[in-house]
Amino acid sequence: MRNYLSLKQITDKLGGRLSQESADVTVSHVGSLAIASDGAISFFNDSKYTTQLHATNASAVILKSEHAALTPLPAIITENPYAYFAKVSQLLNPADEKLAGVHTSASVDDSVKVPESCHIGANVVIERGVILGDDVVIGAGCVVEKETTVGDATILEANVTIKHGCEIGRHCHIFSGAVIGSDGFGYAEETDETQVKQWVKIPQVGNTIIHDHVDIGANTTIDRGAIDDTVIEEGVKIDNLVQIAHNCRIGAHTVIAACVGIAGSAVVGKHCKIGGAVVILGHLSIAENVTISIGSVITRSILKSGTYTALMPFQEHGKWLKSAANIRHLDQLTSKMKALESAVEHLKKLS
Amino acid sequence: MRNYLSLKQITDKLGGRLSQESADVTVSHVGSLAIASDGAISFFNDSKYTTQLHATNASAVILKSEHAALTPLPAIITENPYAYFAKVSQLLNPADEKLAGVHTSASVDDSVKVPESCHIGANVVIERGVILGDDVVIGAGCVVEKETTVGDATILEANVTIKHGCEIGRHCHIFSGAVIGSDGFGYAEETDETQVKQWVKIPQVGNTIIHDHVDIGANTTIDRGAIDDTVIEEGVKIDNLVQIAHNCRIGAHTVIAACVGIAGSAVVGKHCKIGGAVVILGHLSIAENVTISIGSVITRSILKSGTYTALMPFQEHGKWLKSAANIRHLDQLTSKMKALESAVEHLKKLS
Amino acid sequence: MRNYLSLKQITDKLGGRLSQESADVTVSHVGSLAIASDGAISFFNDSKYTTQLHATNASAVILKSEHAALTPLPAIITENPYAYFAKVSQLLNPADEKLAGVHTSASVDDSVKVPESCHIGANVVIERGVILGDDVVIGAGCVVEKETTVGDATILEANVTIKHGCEIGRHCHIFSGAVIGSDGFGYAEETDETQVKQWVKIPQVGNTIIHDHVDIGANTTIDRGAIDDTVIEEGVKIDNLVQIAHNCRIGAHTVIAACVGIAGSAVVGKHCKIGGAVVILGHLSIAENVTISIGSVITRSILKSGTYTALMPFQEHGKWLKSAANIRHLDQLTSKMKALESAVEHLKKLS
Repeated sequence: MRNYLSLKQITDKLGGRLSQESADVTVSHVGSLAIASDGAISFFNDSKYTTQLHATNASAVILKSEHAALTPLPAIITENPYAYFAKVSQLLNPADEKLAGVHTSASVDDSVKVPESCHIGANVVIERGVILGDDVVIGAGCVVEKETTVGDATILEANVTIKHGCEIGRHCHIFSGAVIGSDGFGYAEETDETQVKQWVKIPQVGNTIIHDHVDIGANTTIDRGAIDDTVIEEGVKIDNLVQIAHNCRIGAHTVIAACVGIAGSAVVGKHCKIGGAVVILGHLSIAENVTISIGSVITRSILKSGTYTALMPFQEHGKWLKSAANIRHLDQLTSKMKALESAVEHLKKLS
Repeated sequence: MRNYLSLKQITDKLGGRLSQESADVTVSHVGSLAIASDGAISFFNDSKYTTQLHATNASAVILKSEHAALTPLPAIITENPYAYFAKVSQLLNPADEKLAGVHTSASVDDSVKVPESCHIGANVVIERGVILGDDVVIGAGCVVEKETTVGDATILEANVTIKHGCEIGRHCHIFSGAVIGSDGFGYAEETDETQVKQWVKIPQVGNTIIHDHVDIGANTTIDRGAIDDTVIEEGVKIDNLVQIAHNCRIGAHTVIAACVGIAGSAVVGKHCKIGGAVVILGHLSIAENVTISIGSVITRSILKSGTYTALMPFQEHGKWLKSAANIRHLDQLTSKMKALESAVEHLKKLS
Repeated sequence: MRNYLSLKQITDKLGGRLSQESADVTVSHVGSLAIASDGAISFFNDSKYTTQLHATNASAVILKSEHAALTPLPAIITENPYAYFAKVSQLLNPADEKLAGVHTSASVDDSVKVPESCHIGANVVIERGVILGDDVVIGAGCVVEKETTVGDATILEANVTIKHGCEIGRHCHIFSGAVIGSDGFGYAEETDETQVKQWVKIPQVGNTIIHDHVDIGANTTIDRGAIDDTVIEEGVKIDNLVQIAHNCRIGAHTVIAACVGIAGSAVVGKHCKIGGAVVILGHLSIAENVTISIGSVITRSILKSGTYTALMPFQEHGKWLKSAANIRHLDQLTSKMKALESAVEHLKKLS
């Protein structure tokens, strides 16, 4: 059962300008130019896709005014077609309404007041002193430990674990398997009476503070602070299987792709783009508006916005073996270079 | 209580040829040559282990005909001893029979028909419209969201989460903590009225389609598609803590070791071997029969089968510091080389 | 409600020496020098923080006798201030007492004897033949499969999965989402009758053995052995999102930071420090007291204690592009060098 909207209904809600005679055209779903079918609305952002625009089966397209003349298709004209497309998709694919109420199998501590607008799924555990905002959705199997706060309209998907005392903002979306507020990794080394070195645990007494509009991906872990708090600022979006260690601070509107590890006490600025599988050492500072390329390990603070990369180029294995050997011998190569330079200098004088 | 089989019983089921007077020898468990005890059956695949073969305590061995003369032990002769060994181990270690039935603590929506042959564990949640094949095992604490399909004889270990609308094939094995069909990581950047850049979520309306005989490791995440589907083809084996992003397609019989990250819309061919902790950039194509070495980051499509590697060689830290400095100055080294070449060329002419 | 202790009460329990007139000073919480408030006790370990020591608002400080003269603050004097600080924090932040008893929603098999001192949380599943020590805490949503042993005073945080037959020692701490004893990743390749290569699963019949005082981080996975066991020795501390594959052995008191992957049958020595996101190839041996730098991939055994590193240095992207190209052409550079050396040698003879 599809949800049909006319282009006029869409521009009434989201703004933008209609191309001629487009108002009554209806669309039911989104699609990329290449795979769109009848009834789909697509977007066009870059003239290198002009061939796809001409060939598309989409019923309508979202584009910039400078591209409006490229197609006779019904169109919505706007400055940021991709963001507009995202919002149209939100209209056409409204989030599934979870029925308000508390599942009979949920274990909610008597001290917790659950607003009527909340959905508490099967087998959910909510411990004493938890505070829930309005319209909160807590999926099946989630555990929310004591004295945690969850803000209005925040969604926990199934099987999320939130440890004690965390503060989760409003309109956050936390995906399945995420663990928020687990102990940071802090130990002091000590030699015991038998002269064996052991690790003494440092209690992790800080909290995890998540501001509003933060998304946290599946099986991601964000540790609580050792003494101070770990803080994720407003609008940060974090993908799956990311580790954020104790006492980190992630600046507002930064995006962090999957498999990233950020070590303890690192501070990442606002509006950064951290590529997948990036590793950031502890105690570093990353400036605002920094982009780090996928797979790069960052070992020193970055003080200036820009794009940074640390990748060994990949090669066919046989060639790589030679490159690797050459890298190990770079020092000799550099020494030989110096020797040659002297020799040539000497020869020049003689000649 | 061990399960004893004679070699004759084994070859009756699995084929292969018995060495002389081996038929009645019985074995109860598998073991490698080095650690096998009495009653164990082992395998021999490579003449470099001949010393271990001579010293083994195994009661029987699986080997190729070309190696049959190397040992007087009772033997099964076959072309692929390792695969044969795997099957013998399956015979000697039959999967634990889970009793059919639905645990009283499970929450199964009234719309769901559970075949009598299925095992539904404690605290399992199965939402409306889910379709289960015969002999499905759903371990304790699993959540299977609405309108998902799970094929015959597929096993979900404890605490797996399957999001709405996924299609899981037959004879799949999904390990604990895996999250299948979570939202892909898709956002459009937009500048709001206060000139702050924000991220607008793109609804992820595709599905996750898992074909037959796919294994998915513990705490692995496979996201649903943004518009199209994410597809894992037949016979793919995926290890723990792997991330497969939205719209990826993984070709049949490819194996993916632990900690791998594959970014959005990447297409990996059939029969590939992806080493642990490999990272593959988004939108790339990897040909069939490609092997990628452990820890390599792949930044361009690979069009030809072969082995590819991208590793910085490891060194003792002091030496590495020099290598790293040399790499940062490679450009100067290259320039110096050019200058020297000219100088030498000039000197040659003079001489 | 804070827990106040006098410095005298602290030294009575933990040893150390009081500075003059410090005995009655009371503290309620810990803090770093920089952020400590009134009532906090801090530590001082390194003279480079002398400015912070002079400026701190802490009420007391832990330091070495050689530093005692640096501050007039009430002080505890000890040889290892950081480890002492950890223990003071443990005194001031006692672990939350979980009430003994079995939650009504837990599913505990009739064969299992739960000691009265244990806490079994909501929705916990404990299968037949499980043996629990005294003072065990099993958090909400945990699944402990059949015939597993959990030693005295071990804590499983919420939503941990322990597969069948594992042996977990005493005083271990396993964090949410961890999966212990899942199948190792073992398959034999076989060409079927239609000439398609397929993967035959090798049953994983070994166990996972965790010795005493081991910590295992959130969403970490430790696989069971293929034939032998996977073993984590005493006092090992493992961070979040770590993968330890089948048949590994991790030596006592080794620490492993987040996002590390250790491939099958690797043996890591005692007292190693494995940095975050390190990858260790299968079947390698790492000596005792080895430190591996964050993000390094280790491809050969390390036989000697020391620090080892394998990192591509990060650079501004434009510079990196040149470095990457230069690395790919290192072989030519090396050849050119040889040619130049001959040419110069020849010129020298002529001159």
